[in-house]
Parts: sequence; C-alpha cells; structure tokens
Amino acid sequence: MTFSALDSPLTGPLFTTPAMRALFSARAEIAAMIEVEAALARVEAAHGLVPEALADAIAAIDPDALDLDAIGEATREAGVPSIPVLAAMRGLLPDGLADHLHRGATTQDLIDTALALRAKRAFALLEAECDAVIAALVALARAHARTPCVGRTYGQHATPITFGHVVALWAAGIAEAAADLASAARGACRLSLGGPAGTLPGLGGLGPAIADDLARRLGLAPAPIAWHVRRGAIARAGCALAILTGALAKMAGDVVLLGASETAEVAEPHAPGRGGSSAMPHKRNPVSSTAILANASAARGCVIPLLDAIVAAHQRPAGAWHAEWHALPPLFGLAAGALAHARTIAEGLVVDVARMRANLEAGGGLVFAEAAASALAPHLGAAEAKARVTAAADRARAERIGLRAALEASGDGVPLDAAFDLAPHIDASAAFVARALADLETGRG
Amino acid sequence: MTFSALDSPLTGPLFTTPAMRALFSARAEIAAMIEVEAALARVEAAHGLVPEALADAIAAIDPDALDLDAIGEATREAGVPSIPVLAAMRGLLPDGLADHLHRGATTQDLIDTALALRAKRAFALLEAECDAVIAALVALARAHARTPCVGRTYGQHATPITFGHVVALWAAGIAEAAADLASAARGACRLSLGGPAGTLPGLGGLGPAIADDLARRLGLAPAPIAWHVRRGAIARAGCALAILTGALAKMAGDVVLLGASETAEVAEPHAPGRGGSSAMPHKRNPVSSTAILANASAARGCVIPLLDAIVAAHQRPAGAWHAEWHALPPLFGLAAGALAHARTIAEGLVVDVARMRANLEAGGGLVFAEAAASALAPHLGAAEAKARVTAAADRARAERIGLRAALEASGDGVPLDAAFDLAPHIDASAAFVARALADLETGRG
Amino acid sequence: MTFSALDSPLTGPLFTTPAMRALFSARAEIAAMIEVEAALARVEAAHGLVPEALADAIAAIDPDALDLDAIGEATREAGVPSIPVLAAMRGLLPDGLADHLHRGATTQDLIDTALALRAKRAFALLEAECDAVIAALVALARAHARTPCVGRTYGQHATPITFGHVVALWAAGIAEAAADLASAARGACRLSLGGPAGTLPGLGGLGPAIADDLARRLGLAPAPIAWHVRRGAIARAGCALAILTGALAKMAGDVVLLGASETAEVAEPHAPGRGGSSAMPHKRNPVSSTAILANASAARGCVIPLLDAIVAAHQRPAGAWHAEWHALPPLFGLAAGALAHARTIAEGLVVDVARMRANLEAGGGLVFAEAAASALAPHLGAAEAKARVTAAADRARAERIGLRAALEASGDGVPLDAAFDLAPHIDASAAFVARALADLETGRG
Amino acid sequence: MTFSALDSPLTGPLFTTPAMRALFSARAEIAAMIEVEAALARVEAAHGLVPEALADAIAAIDPDALDLDAIGEATREAGVPSIPVLAAMRGLLPDGLADHLHRGATTQDLIDTALALRAKRAFALLEAECDAVIAALVALARAHARTPCVGRTYGQHATPITFGHVVALWAAGIAEAAADLASAARGACRLSLGGPAGTLPGLGGLGPAIADDLARRLGLAPAPIAWHVRRGAIARAGCALAILTGALAKMAGDVVLLGASETAEVAEPHAPGRGGSSAMPHKRNPVSSTAILANASAARGCVIPLLDAIVAAHQRPAGAWHAEWHALPPLFGLAAGALAHARTIAEGLVVDVARMRANLEAGGGLVFAEAAASALAPHLGAAEAKARVTAAADRARAERIGLRAALEASGDGVPLDAAFDLAPHIDASAAFVARALADLETGRG
Repeated sequence: MTFSALDSPLTGPLFTTPAMRALFSARAEIAAMIEVEAALARVEAAHGLVPEALADAIAAIDPDALDLDAIGEATREAGVPSIPVLAAMRGLLPDGLADHLHRGATTQDLIDTALALRAKRAFALLEAECDAVIAALVALARAHARTPCVGRTYGQHATPITFGHVVALWAAGIAEAAADLASAARGACRLSLGGPAGTLPGLGGLGPAIADDLARRLGLAPAPIAWHVRRGAIARAGCALAILTGALAKMAGDVVLLGASETAEVAEPHAPGRGGSSAMPHKRNPVSSTAILANASAARGCVIPLLDAIVAAHQRPAGAWHAEWHALPPLFGLAAGALAHARTIAEGLVVDVARMRANLEAGGGLVFAEAAASALAPHLGAAEAKARVTAAADRARAERIGLRAALEASGDGVPLDAAFDLAPHIDASAAFVARALADLETGRG
Repeated sequence: MTFSALDSPLTGPLFTTPAMRALFSARAEIAAMIEVEAALARVEAAHGLVPEALADAIAAIDPDALDLDAIGEATREAGVPSIPVLAAMRGLLPDGLADHLHRGATTQDLIDTALALRAKRAFALLEAECDAVIAALVALARAHARTPCVGRTYGQHATPITFGHVVALWAAGIAEAAADLASAARGACRLSLGGPAGTLPGLGGLGPAIADDLARRLGLAPAPIAWHVRRGAIARAGCALAILTGALAKMAGDVVLLGASETAEVAEPHAPGRGGSSAMPHKRNPVSSTAILANASAARGCVIPLLDAIVAAHQRPAGAWHAEWHALPPLFGLAAGALAHARTIAEGLVVDVARMRANLEAGGGLVFAEAAASALAPHLGAAEAKARVTAAADRARAERIGLRAALEASGDGVPLDAAFDLAPHIDASAAFVARALADLETGRG
Repeated sequence: MTFSALDSPLTGPLFTTPAMRALFSARAEIAAMIEVEAALARVEAAHGLVPEALADAIAAIDPDALDLDAIGEATREAGVPSIPVLAAMRGLLPDGLADHLHRGATTQDLIDTALALRAKRAFALLEAECDAVIAALVALARAHARTPCVGRTYGQHATPITFGHVVALWAAGIAEAAADLASAARGACRLSLGGPAGTLPGLGGLGPAIADDLARRLGLAPAPIAWHVRRGAIARAGCALAILTGALAKMAGDVVLLGASETAEVAEPHAPGRGGSSAMPHKRNPVSSTAILANASAARGCVIPLLDAIVAAHQRPAGAWHAEWHALPPLFGLAAGALAHARTIAEGLVVDVARMRANLEAGGGLVFAEAAASALAPHLGAAEAKARVTAAADRARAERIGLRAALEASGDGVPLDAAFDLAPHIDASAAFVARALADLETGRG
Repeated sequence: MTFSALDSPLTGPLFTTPAMRALFSARAEIAAMIEVEAALARVEAAHGLVPEALADAIAAIDPDALDLDAIGEATREAGVPSIPVLAAMRGLLPDGLADHLHRGATTQDLIDTALALRAKRAFALLEAECDAVIAALVALARAHARTPCVGRTYGQHATPITFGHVVALWAAGIAEAAADLASAARGACRLSLGGPAGTLPGLGGLGPAIADDLARRLGLAPAPIAWHVRRGAIARAGCALAILTGALAKMAGDVVLLGASETAEVAEPHAPGRGGSSAMPHKRNPVSSTAILANASAARGCVIPLLDAIVAAHQRPAGAWHAEWHALPPLFGLAAGALAHARTIAEGLVVDVARMRANLEAGGGLVFAEAAASALAPHLGAAEAKARVTAAADRARAERIGLRAALEASGDGVPLDAAFDLAPHIDASAAFVARALADLETGRG
C-alpha cells in the first residue's frame, strides 16, 4: 500500500494497468514538461523570440537527469512542481540558452499542457480498450441473441428475455459512455498558454499566434482564451471517466449477481489461483467484477474535487486547481483498470445456457404472468384478468404447483398455450439485440 | 422550509424560478403521464393494437381530477407512482377503453418518458437563459475590453489585465457548459418503451416500430435498445447541469471577491431592500452570487446519486433508479435559479472603473515585476534579472516605495519605461477578448 | 413531483414520514422562529434589556398569520428568509414592542437556532425509531440464533452460519450508527447567538450571559464562541445521518439479495397491492428495501454540501452556509423514511427456514470446504490439504457429485464426518449472536 | 506524478508528510500483516491451537524478504493482497509451522486488522499535530484578543471584532474536529477476526475468547460481532478526517482572503523561494493555505466510497470493501499534509496590526452602522432609526464622507460618540475569546 491503492506495488496491478501507470509516472511527467518547453521554444524561435538552438537543447535533456526528490522538496516550498522542474532544466541548458526557457509562459501553462499531452495518450489507450470490450460483447450478444434466460426486476423474476439482450444492453451502455468520453477528450486535451494572468503580455502582440502554433505542433486543441480558471472541460472529462467506469460496473454488478451460487448462470473465466480465498479452498470469487465495482465507487468520489475546481477564483485560485491533481490522474487509472477487467470478462465469460433454462423453468411459469393476463383480458376484461393472474400466482407460490396449473384450475377454459410460449419472448429480445448491434456497428453508440 | 429549500415557499423564490417549478409540479407530472399514455394509444391504434377512441379519451383526462394525496398513499405501497396514477386514469376512462390503457408498457417506461418530456422543456428553458446570460456578458466584455484592472493569482496581484478579459472568460466558461448541456440534453431526452424487462414482448413483433413511432410523436430521441438499466445519459445530463452551475459559480465567486469592501471594483445591481441584514443597516450583500454559490454546492452533491444509478442491477434495480428521483429534478431547479441570478448579475453589474485603476496603482508597480525582469534580462541574464526584481519587490514592500523606485535605486540604468507601461497589457488582453467574443458569436463556445 | 421527491405529494409518502415532514414545514419553521425570538425576549427582559411584555407578545403571534408567499418573494431580494419573517413579525407586534424584537441578534442566529430546535425534535424522532428497529431485530436474531443458512462472500457460498448472525450484525450496525447519531445530535443542537459578526456587541457586556441563559431556556447546547462559521458539527450530524441510512441500506440490500427469486430465503411482509407492477400480475417487489436503498444513495450526495460549508469565509460566507439549507433538511427526511421502512422489514420479515436449509444443501457441501481442509491438514499438511479440497471442489462442481463424495473418492480414508457437520457452525454463530445481543442490550452499540 | 499526487515524488512533499507516508508504505503494510499474524499465533498457542514456536517464527520474518512485485502480480488474480502475502510468509516459515499460519482467520481479517494497527498510529500522529496547531492558535488568539480588525460577512465589512476572535474561532473549530476524530478513532481501530463468514467456525468454541485476547494484545478495540460487513465506523472515521481537513481549510481560506493584496492583514510566513512564480518575481503565494484547500477538496471526494462501502452485501461484498482501499489511506495522507501546513501557518502567521486598523478606518465608519442604529432607536424608533442609517450609509458611500458625517448632517442631534466607539466591540470580542480559550484549555473543544 501507498496512499493510493493504484500506486501500491501490492494492489496496483489489481486496480490499474501498466500502460496507464507509465503515462502517469513522475518520469513521464518530467518528459512531458520537456516536450512542452521544447515545442514552445521551437514556435517562439520561428517567431524570432528565442534562439534557434534552444528547442534542440531542451529536447536533449534526459528526464532521468533530474533529481525527483530534490524537486519534491522544493515543490513543498514553491507550491507547484513546475518551478523546481524549470530550475533544474535551466541547470542542464547552456548558459546563453537557459535564460530563454519558458518565455512568456507561466507554471500553470506548463503543468496543464504537460497533463493534456498525457491525457491525450491516456484517452487513446482507453478508447482502444473500449473498442475491444465492445467488440467482444457484440460477439457474445450475437452468439446468445436467442438464448433464453430470466429477465429480473427488483431481484425477482419478471419475464423471459434472452442473454444476448442482457449483453447487448451492457455493450450499448459502454459504447455510449465511450462515445461521450471521446467527445469529452477533445475538449480536455487543450493547450494552455496564457502567461501570468492569461493574457500573454510577455510575447508582445504575438501571444495568440504563438498559442495557436504551439497547439498545432503539440496536437492539442487551441483555446481562444485562457482556461487557467475555466475548468469545466476538465470536470466534464472526469465525469465521462466516472460514467464509463460506471457503465462497466453495471456489467460487473450483473456478473456478480448472475454468478451467485443460487443463480450460477455465468462465471468469470477461471484459472488456477484466480479468485481464491485464504480460508476457503472452494472459492472462485469474481475478481474482475470486484475490481471494477471498487474502481467505480472510487471514481464517483473523484468527480467531487473536479466539480469544486470549476469555482476557481480570479486568474488562478489557491487550491481549487491543485485539487484536480488529486482527482484526475486517479480517474485515468481507475478507468484503465476497470476496462482491463471488463475485457477479461467480455472475452472469457463462461455462460451456462442450461442453467439459464433451468432457472427460467424453476419459476413455475410466473414469468409468463403478464402474457397470461393479456391472454385472459379479452375474455375477462384487463382488470379482472390481472386480478385472476395475481391470485393464481399467489396460489402457485403457496402450493408450488406452477402458474399454468393454478390458472387452469380456475376453469375459465381460455387457451393458454400461447401465453406460456417462450418463442415470442425470444423473438422480441432478438429484435432489439439486432437493432442494438446494428447501432453499435455504425458507431452511433 | 420543506425538506428541499427549492420547494419551500420561504426560500424557493431565492433558489429557483417559477417557470422551472411549474415543469416539476405534481400536476405537471400527471399531465406529462397523460400525454405519454395518449400518444402511446395513438401509435398503438395506428398499428391496430388498441381502439381508435382510446387516445382521445386519455387526452381528455383532466390532471386535476386525480387525487394526489390518495396517489401518494398508494405509492408508498406500490413503490412507484405510475401504478396508482394508471389506476386512477383507468377509473376516469370508459369501461371498454380502460382495459387498453398502457398496453405493453411498464411503470418505468411511463415515469422515464414523462420525465424526458419535461426535461426537454426544462433544457429549453435553461438554454434560452444561457443565451441571455452570455449575450449580456458579451456586451459587458466588449464594453470593458480595454478597461485596465489587476489580474490576481492566489488572491494576490499578478499582472495588469482588462476587466473585459475577466468577463470574456466567464462568458467562455458558461458558453462551453451551455454547449455541453445541449449535447447532454439530446442524449437524455429519450423515449423509454421497453415493457416489463426491456423487450416489449406484449406487442407481438411490433415493439421496435411502435417505439420509434412514439419517439417521433413525442419529439424524443429513440432508443435502439431499452435504457431502463442503461443510465449513463441521465448521469451525463446531471453532470452537465452541475458543471453549468459551477461555471456560473465561477462568475459569482469572482463577483463576491471583486465586490469585497477592500476591493470594491464591482457590485451586484442594488435596489432598496436587496442584500440587507437584520442587524446591519449598511449592508448590501451580494444576494445573487450567494444563491448561485449555494446552488453550485448543492448541485455537486446531486451528481453522486446519478453516478450510483448507473450500476443498475439486472433489468430494473431496487433503489438505484429511484435514487435519480431525488437528484435530477433538483438539479434542474438549482441550475434555473443560478441562471436567473447570473442574468441579474450579467445585465446589471455595477463596474467601478476608477476603483479598478486605483487598485492597480495601489500595488506600487508590483504588477509590472514580470515585465521589469524581462526588461532587465538582456542586460543581466534572466536569472539575475529575476533575482534583482525579487529583491526590489521585497524592498518596495518593506519601504512602501514602489517597485520602480526600488529598481532604479539599484542603479543599473536600464530603461524601465516600457516595463511599467500599461498599454501592452491592455493590448494583449484585448486581443484575447476579441478572439473569445468572435468564438462566442460563431457559437463554438 | 416537486423538485424534491421528499416534498412531492406523489412520492413523498414513499420516501419519508408525516412526522418528520411536519417538523420541516414552512409553518413549523415560522413557529420555531417565533419560539426563538420569544425566548430571546424573555431572557433579555430578565437582564433588563427589553420590555417585559415583549416575550408574551411575540409568543402570541400565530404562525398562520404570516404570508408565506410574500415572505418568499422578499427572501429573493433579502437573501435570507429571516429578514422578511422579522419584518412580518414586527408588523404583528404592538408599536412600542416591535422596536425591541431580535435585539442584538442577527439573521443567522435566528435561522440556525430555529433549525437547531427542530433538529433536536427530529433527532428524537429518529432515535425512537432506531430503538424500535433494533428491538425488532434483536427479537428476530434471538429467534433465529440457531437457524442455519448459507454465509455468502462475493455472492457465493462461503460457510454455514445462522440467520440470527445475519440479523444480529444488521442490528449491531444500526445500533452503532444510532449511538453515533445521538452523539452527533448533541453537538449540532446548539444555540446560535452571535450578532452581526459573532461577538454580540449590541448587548453591552451581557452577551455571554444572555447566550447561556437562552441556551438553557431553549434546551440547546451552549456555544462558548459563535459557530456562524464553525460548521463542523453540522457536517458531522449530516455524516451521521448518511451513515445511519447506509446501515439501514446494508440490511435492505441483503433483503433484496436474500429475497431474489433464486434464493428466496426472506421476503418483505406482503399485503395486497404491495410491490406490484403495472405490467406483471405476479410481482411482489421489495418496496421498503427499494426506498431505503434510494434514500441511502441520496443521503450520500447530501453530505457533500455540508462538507463544503465548513470552509466558510470570514464571519459569514456568501453561499457556503446557504448550501446547508439544500442538504441538511433532506437528510432528516431521507433517514426518517429509511427508518420507517426498516421497521416494516424488521417487524414483519418473512423468513423461510426450509429454503435456507435447502439452499445450504444445494451447494453440494462446498460450504464445508474449509472444514474439510482443516480435517485433512493434520494428515496431509495444510497446503496439500487445501489443494486436495480445491481439486475435489472443482470435480464436485463439474460432475455435480458433492464435495464429500469427491473427497472420499480420492481414498485418503481420513474421517470426514466432523468436517461436514453443521453443528459447530451453528454453535459458533450462536456464540457471536449472544455476544452481540448482550452488547445491544447494555446499549453499547 | 503517480496516479495520486500524495504518492508522487514531485508533489507528495507538498501534500503530505514523511511520517504518515511511512505508515502507509507497502513495507509497512507487510510489517503490520506480520505483526498481526504473529500476535494471532501467540494467542492461539496460548489456547493450544498452534505450536508455541509459530509466533516467534512469524515475527522473525523480514518484511523486506517478500517480493512486492510478485505479490502485486498475484494480487491481480487473487483479488486481495493478503493471499499472496500469506503464501510468501508460508514460504519463509519452517515446514512444520507454515501449516499453522493464519489459523481460523480470513483474508479480510488480516487486511482490516493490519490497517487498524496502522490507523491507530496514524490517528496518534494526527492528534499530536492537532494539539500543536491548537496550542499555537491559542497563543495567537491570546496575543490578539484585543487587536481590532474588521468583521466581514458576505465579503463585506460588518462590525469591528478582534483578530483574536477570528483565531479563537479557527482554534475552536479545529479542536472540535480533533475531539471528534479521537472519538471516531476509537471506533475504527478495531480488531477484525471473524474467519470466512464472520463466525470463526475453525476455532471450535474458542472464537470469541481468541478474538478478545488478540484485541487486547494488539491494543485494538474488540468487536462483539464481526465487522466484515459492518463498515459504519470506517465511514465515520473517514468523515472525521474530512471534517478536520475542512476545519483547517476554514482557516486556510481566511488566510488567503485576509492576505489578498487589497486586504493584506496577514501573510503566511515567508522564506526565500516560498510561494514564488515561474513568471512573476514579486509573488509570495500562500502555499500552505493552497495545499490545505486542495487537500480539503480531495478529502470531501474520498468520503463517497466510504459511504458506499457501508452497503456491503452478505458476509463480504464484491467491491464495496475494496473501494475503501482507494479512499481511507488517502484521507490520512491528506489530513496529515493539511495539519503540517496548518502548523506552519499557526506558528508563523505574520499579522499586520496596523493594516487591520487601517482597513477598519477605511470603511468610513460603516462598521458602526448597527451601533448607530441602536443609538438612534430610542429617539426615532427602531425602524426609522434603521432606515435613517441605511440612507446615511448610502450617502456616505456615494459622497465618500463617512457614516458619522452623513448622520450628523441629518441633524438629529443624537449623541453618536458611543456608537462610533471601538471599545465595546473589543470588549465583546475579548470576552468570547476568553471563553473559547478557557474551553480549549479544559479540552472540551
């Protein structure tokens, strides 16, 4: 354990991925800062503001050459890591060049742009993983488009559906969140270059032009006006990450429920040692679902500081911006870990078709209650039909005789074959599965 | 007071608007349910599923004819208000028609669709109010594009900017949030028609067709597959409402700070009795900003249950969906109230240009410290120049002599006129104001 | 619906109680304000500061005589309802007395103290209801102290326990939260009397004495120094309300899970019409658990504005305090509703002892895996024993032959009777039930 | 940066302390697990359940001997780190002893108890630091008990108070939170020993006795019944940590506001390089206040997963418990960092008494408006007096002539000396300061 379970060598591998971790390492942060300053130097040199040689000299700085602990100590006094990082970089540049580093920019520009660069890569990682999860779920939904199972509401048997419908709905929810994430990413991966108070006074009249050139060079969205204290897009990105993690947790929660011992319709893919217990030799705990659900809970909490940060005082607040540092990187870690586990589930879920059928039948036909009432309605009126079925259901439960038997015992003589037929439920489910998959394939989410 | 300060006759007018309140009244909810059921009947009649006369009979039901208290009592047992509402509606329909009401649909369809209808109108109200706030801020930013004032970071003087820059940034933040809200609204204003477990088995093979026809008729987005347990779009809408309220609170927070007695650069529009105190006769409290900030705080909390609700079990959860009822309507109320107050501020803000100038000058030239260091850098090197200015600033503070005097006392003889010139700061600010306003006018946010 | 589902005539009865609603009505708020001002007048008269007749004149004001809508309109301008309420009260007092109303106090004193008075009554309501819930659960736990059922971890069968243990643990969690609530209540039900900025300058040197006398008279805790901007105790009370609602939701969540169709070990008490569906005649949804879970989710969100409010600027903040009004009253409403439903469950839970036994047996003995491994350990070593049982469990699952058969097939000849004996599990569970009940009865939580 | 800003070498020193970091390192976690297992072995040996030699053998394990990365990889499959940690420990024990490790316990027992041990030390660290902060604030409040300054509400001048009153109120808020934290700590630092499903079936009838002995040995509170799924006390501890951080942020927010350039009444202690800017040579940003405010925002978010975790399914949930790992350790880190910065402020705050007086006088006497109205009331009636002062205040503001001059211009001839006298305000403030300090010294908070 470290303070964060994501950073811990003990629990980090459970909760996040090495690829995402690499993007948010201290070294990666230093490297991104170097990249930003080099690009700024290149653009400023093109405008004649700094020496031509500066950019290459910056780019040549080895991130490993900076003493992270010394920077950390200095950050405690400076309040932001960019100040000691810039000081360290200056120490590694030739004298004539060091003076020109970071021309016109401010600490927040450097930190926010270096974060935007890594966020862009992080969003790309997540989007690729979303695609893989969705693709696996689409295949699973297609395979089970006509596999009957119980639809459940409030934990109880409702009507028959198909397992493909369950999975298609997971996929649709994840795809919707992924599309929203991509949209949020475009807004958040934005250049920050505003100088001390957002107006770039140190660049003569060249501020806007340099900002736009730098955005292009770094592959980031430009900002017509500074976003030092305009943080809605960051909060929006954080919300999108939490919503995506939530959409994955919807699936994970269902996997836990459907995999419960009494239900046992699905199981996470098993391998020796997976989901064991220190005490119970027989356990196969749903480890991936567990991690996803834990990450979703943590992600919800991370949204709060990002919403706080929107209310940023003046041209730079004392604390609101810094609170983002506590919340945004963890959200990337949480989403990445949840996606990796979701992929494990989506690609390897063990589906017990026979058990689904058995559970459907074990309900004694109660799942056909709505259909039975509809069948009786033309004969008895809807209200009476519903009351009749309710009474029969009560009797079926009490005497364990099955709904159909209970209804037939009432002697109305209304034919009930159609009402107790699974086929229309399978057809109805499959029709929506087909629509959802078509929608997913055209990428509309 | 009631449980909610929005609903209280005592505080409701402070925190929200009558127009939004009307959309979320119990009567409006009943009326929306009637509208949904009538439209469903019309579509189903066109498909030959229910009698032609049903739709008109439903539409003729007077919402005031339903006994709200009786429905409330029944809801406590039923768990959802739609069940007693439907029962009451049946009691008001001719016998032969009552049986056909709500054909194939489920309670959640009715509640979610009736909410979507009102949400659509609510979003429209908010978007119109956003436009008005932004328009007023654009005019204010243009008027003050070249009005110099202090830029402040961490509560302290940073560099000169213009007040138009401050306002343009508020406007850009609000416009960005408004554009995001419009996008979120499209996803959230969606038809729900899935029947018991999302597959519409009761409509024969007509489920998808009826769902799409009904969406068109109600002016709602269709859903390729049920969203009973696919709630990301609702959470996304809630986040957008909280982010918009936050963007307004950024402005409100600045108004409180800039209007503080010692700063006194702006004031909320004053009228007799506005912002008074029960004890202090001289008070003019910033009432609108206060309400906005309170609403933003409450809005952040409302996001949590919406994120929870994404993790919805099976085909309908026990509680997660119902938690949305506690959180989404208040978010509309909070955003509406915040916007109304924001409009009061945007349209009536009292700006004291002379005080802005006086505050700028009272800082003894420290706001030009960055420019002075830049001016000295070619002569002393950047590091030495910065150190020199830091020392001069310390001396200026200690001896209250002004930064320029302190620097000139050091005798470098470097010309400092340009460094202490306000003009480049005004120009730099105005350039970004122009960009932001151009961007706002083309509606890109 | 209104903005809040608690205030809605349609859903309010589902989510909260009439008794709590009465405490938080606008009329009750006015009445509490009258009570506070009358008590203040009485104390101040005793100190010779205001006329003797004032207190009775205030106390004689009929809350219904105040025009709530007019007060609401004025609050929009004043920013706080106490200003127009005081104005209205003055209008109802004899001329010579009106001038002395509210002597030395400020708006926040009136609002906070009037809230503290009602909070005190609200906490008493909740504590009484907690006692009833705990008493019912204690009886239930005692009745089922030796009723065997499955213990489940990660949704899966773990080891046998007793249902009394399940219930005792619910009771212990609720009792712990109730004890914490009582402690939090003592801190939150506190007199506020500080005047404009917390120092009561208008009362000569009598401020502290009058404050203490008034606290005594109102039955509220005194405050050595003003708490206008010292809000931790309010946040603490809000957290305690959310934690209590959470402890109830732990039980509710278990009731949903244990009542799921496949598990069916418990059911909420059923009555005709309870937990029905608009579509499905057979449904008996767990309505009380649903409402508790929804309320717990909403309660979590309400904690956020209360935590925000601690960071209250200067001697009265612009917004942070007002945000409490959005969050604290709803928390009382949510907790009250959750408790009422919890009592319904605790007093009426239907327990299917036979189904518990059947589910226990349906697991094929896997719940005895830990005991089996312990039995084998002395013969095989612990690691080998655990591996052997794991392998047998895999085989038992695959071949559906039961764990004991699978183990005996391996031919070690180790006696397994004791390992597959339910008695030690019942004994072990009952021992902890007895401890927990003893603890609950001595009230240590 | 790492995922968490607390764990980052770059920003960790800004946001937390080395002492707290040491408690939450992975090595410390391993060491605590060893400590727990050794104590369990010792207790079980005393009851004759395991060999006497086991405890010493466990205690001799060097935490550094375990391969953290290998454990992390295994945790990804196991779902909990305790399983691979136990496996690694077994590998380091003599064969005959390894089999007896962790007898009767489960993974959650080990993780929760190892956390409780470290939490106990962490709470002790925090409590000691709270004492230091409070002691420094008490001294500061005493020194400035009679130093006049402006009391401000809604950002605006209200009435005169003393700076000692401001500080005493900070201290009282922090002391109240510290007392609450100590109370919460007692509930959270609790032994967990329940075995697979909370009933310790593997220990024969010795479960309760062993649990109580182990609690005593480890210095933790005992639990009458398992708390695997009774998590209110953990949430309560998390809330207390967030409330404490909030109470510190109240002070930090005031320091930022009072230190704003226009107000300039206080400053954080300055040292060269502290609170600088990468661009602006003159800046002295309030670094400590910034870090406290950022930590308070993050802490609010961390409360959410802890509240979620209360709703823990069955005998161990899939995810809810694991979410605590994301939230509780960071709360300790955030609180520790905030306290360290608060101590820096409390012990070194630079107070500008002259500026306080100047700001008081710059308001033109408006701070005496309430007193003036009180002075006029006996002559004019309270309502007319208030209206007269309001009008005079308006005129004073418009003509910049001072309230007293404006009032005297109205020619009532009422003597106003007493109303514009600072002394009663100082006396009133000092009286409450004395009460608060007396209360703090007797430790009642």
